[in-house]
Amino acid sequence: MDKNTIFLSHGSGGKQSQELLELIYNTLNEVVINHGEDSGVFQAVEGKAAITTDSYTVDPIFFPGGNIGKLAICGTTNDLAMVGAIPKLITLSLMIEEGFSFDDLNKILISIKDETKKGNISIIAGDTKIVSRGKIDKIFINTAGYGVLATNESISSKNAKPQDDVIITGDIGDHGASIMAYRNGFESSLKSDCANVAPLIKALLEQEAIIHALRDPTRGGLASILNEIVASSKVNIILEEERLPIKESVSGVCDALGIDPLYMACEGRAVIICPQDETNEVLKILHNEPLGSNAQVIGRVTERSDTPKLFLKTFIGAKRILPLLSREQTPRIC
Amino acid sequence: MDKNTIFLSHGSGGKQSQELLELIYNTLNEVVINHGEDSGVFQAVEGKAAITTDSYTVDPIFFPGGNIGKLAICGTTNDLAMVGAIPKLITLSLMIEEGFSFDDLNKILISIKDETKKGNISIIAGDTKIVSRGKIDKIFINTAGYGVLATNESISSKNAKPQDDVIITGDIGDHGASIMAYRNGFESSLKSDCANVAPLIKALLEQEAIIHALRDPTRGGLASILNEIVASSKVNIILEEERLPIKESVSGVCDALGIDPLYMACEGRAVIICPQDETNEVLKILHNEPLGSNAQVIGRVTERSDTPKLFLKTFIGAKRILPLLSREQTPRIC
Repeated sequence: MDKNTIFLSHGSGGKQSQELLELIYNTLNEVVINHGEDSGVFQAVEGKAAITTDSYTVDPIFFPGGNIGKLAICGTTNDLAMVGAIPKLITLSLMIEEGFSFDDLNKILISIKDETKKGNISIIAGDTKIVSRGKIDKIFINTAGYGVLATNESISSKNAKPQDDVIITGDIGDHGASIMAYRNGFESSLKSDCANVAPLIKALLEQEAIIHALRDPTRGGLASILNEIVASSKVNIILEEERLPIKESVSGVCDALGIDPLYMACEGRAVIICPQDETNEVLKILHNEPLGSNAQVIGRVTERSDTPKLFLKTFIGAKRILPLLSREQTPRIC
Repeated sequence: MDKNTIFLSHGSGGKQSQELLELIYNTLNEVVINHGEDSGVFQAVEGKAAITTDSYTVDPIFFPGGNIGKLAICGTTNDLAMVGAIPKLITLSLMIEEGFSFDDLNKILISIKDETKKGNISIIAGDTKIVSRGKIDKIFINTAGYGVLATNESISSKNAKPQDDVIITGDIGDHGASIMAYRNGFESSLKSDCANVAPLIKALLEQEAIIHALRDPTRGGLASILNEIVASSKVNIILEEERLPIKESVSGVCDALGIDPLYMACEGRAVIICPQDETNEVLKILHNEPLGSNAQVIGRVTERSDTPKLFLKTFIGAKRILPLLSREQTPRIC
């Protein structure tokens, strides 16, 4: 029996299942706080808490700047951060195709461990399923996260208000463009921005910055999540093209593929919508953090609207609508 | 465009994504407590809480007695119950193959809604991914659960003690046997036992029954989870064949397939290990509950052991070891 290969029997609930679970447990070790029980138990504190979930089906599973394991931790901690929560606990469910290699699993687990440790989070529960060959593509990962709110203010996509500034914490579209470049065999030095932005949000909340809305521009990119915010808050937003931080290499990939970088996923950025008189303070805090050094204002909430829209003011001063798209441009980007 | 078909664009983050999410939200409606945010926020109470996760890849997705949606709710509430927790919140992540039908999705969502409502649980966060044709088999579901502990006593698979009784709340192997019968085209009236056993455990804990260990015998069946308990608690357990409640139809399927029913998954049963002098009280409480009407003692913890083993005392009085199996007999049973 090939020792580097995962077989169906590793998901049987029997002897080889236990061997696989022990291997996973031993690799993750210090970041796991539950071993051998169906659920993990912890001491909850009174107050507002947040829970989220995401399944990751990214293709390829290893990409420049990360892999599906790192993404599965960062994506979920970021979702917690977007409601103002400090991530505390995470669950880890692996769905693995029969024939997958232990070497690849090990690399993914090590990324998971590193990212979990760096984020000061613990893995409280896990699950592993093995699916027959051809019934799943290599490996999918689900993580659910639990965090504790660091603010009593309501941060919500319903909460953007006229005259608020729209800030982005870094360059746009790196994750999507680097995956698409890799998939299409383009020569490129591009890397995914995949990162945990929770420490950035924590810094803002600890310094009592007032934030109205937060969102990480993942699937569908900046334009899609801002479309959700304008719809939820019933406001118009205008972005200024000349202020948008987009790497030339990202534009290059997007041009070649005919995709607007504003619809390209980021995995380590946040969009922050805050009152104008908070902007300087917010930027000052962000600029002190490595992940926020390139943070900048990219637009403004202009007015309330019953037909909410996202606009782009172009370099030449024209104003055009950035709609929600109705076709899939970048499948399995996360 | 076929209106009953899910396309890749339903996972794009764009317009059709939002239409799919609205449909899911509208179907689940009253059991969902978060709409449109990356994480759901709730008021946590101080005290011990439990978190668990499970991904469901069962094949077929519709089976006698349930479907993947019902299973995804019951499986996770059951895992919470197994540490003595009352399930409160659940997350729902759908991974769907391109080409899946809205009709089937709707049936699954209605089961999810029914089971969630019956279990007095809310869905606090969700996620939907669409995966290209052939890269996933129809639909996989991950649920993570959050519950609040109903006891201060430690219920753990490490906690089985010599002279404890081993109780099962109902017949053995119905889920596994009914799925295997269905897959193999056997004529059978068998149904999965798929059910939420949390109310059963809640009844025991509310009446302050003393329980040492709890486990639901899913993947790998009764023999596998008891093997885990003997290993964790470092004890021997002996089961009595003549006391094991196994339906004739389950035995029939198992005989035809050459599988021991003791290794067949249940999805609506619990194994309860409790001190002998608690047994009468435990059985009385269980027998008052519809799901526990057939509960009975099936064995006993005999002694501490450094080489822990699970034994079966057969009808003819012989004693044989029930080992952990090392091959997969029933892939994708849950």
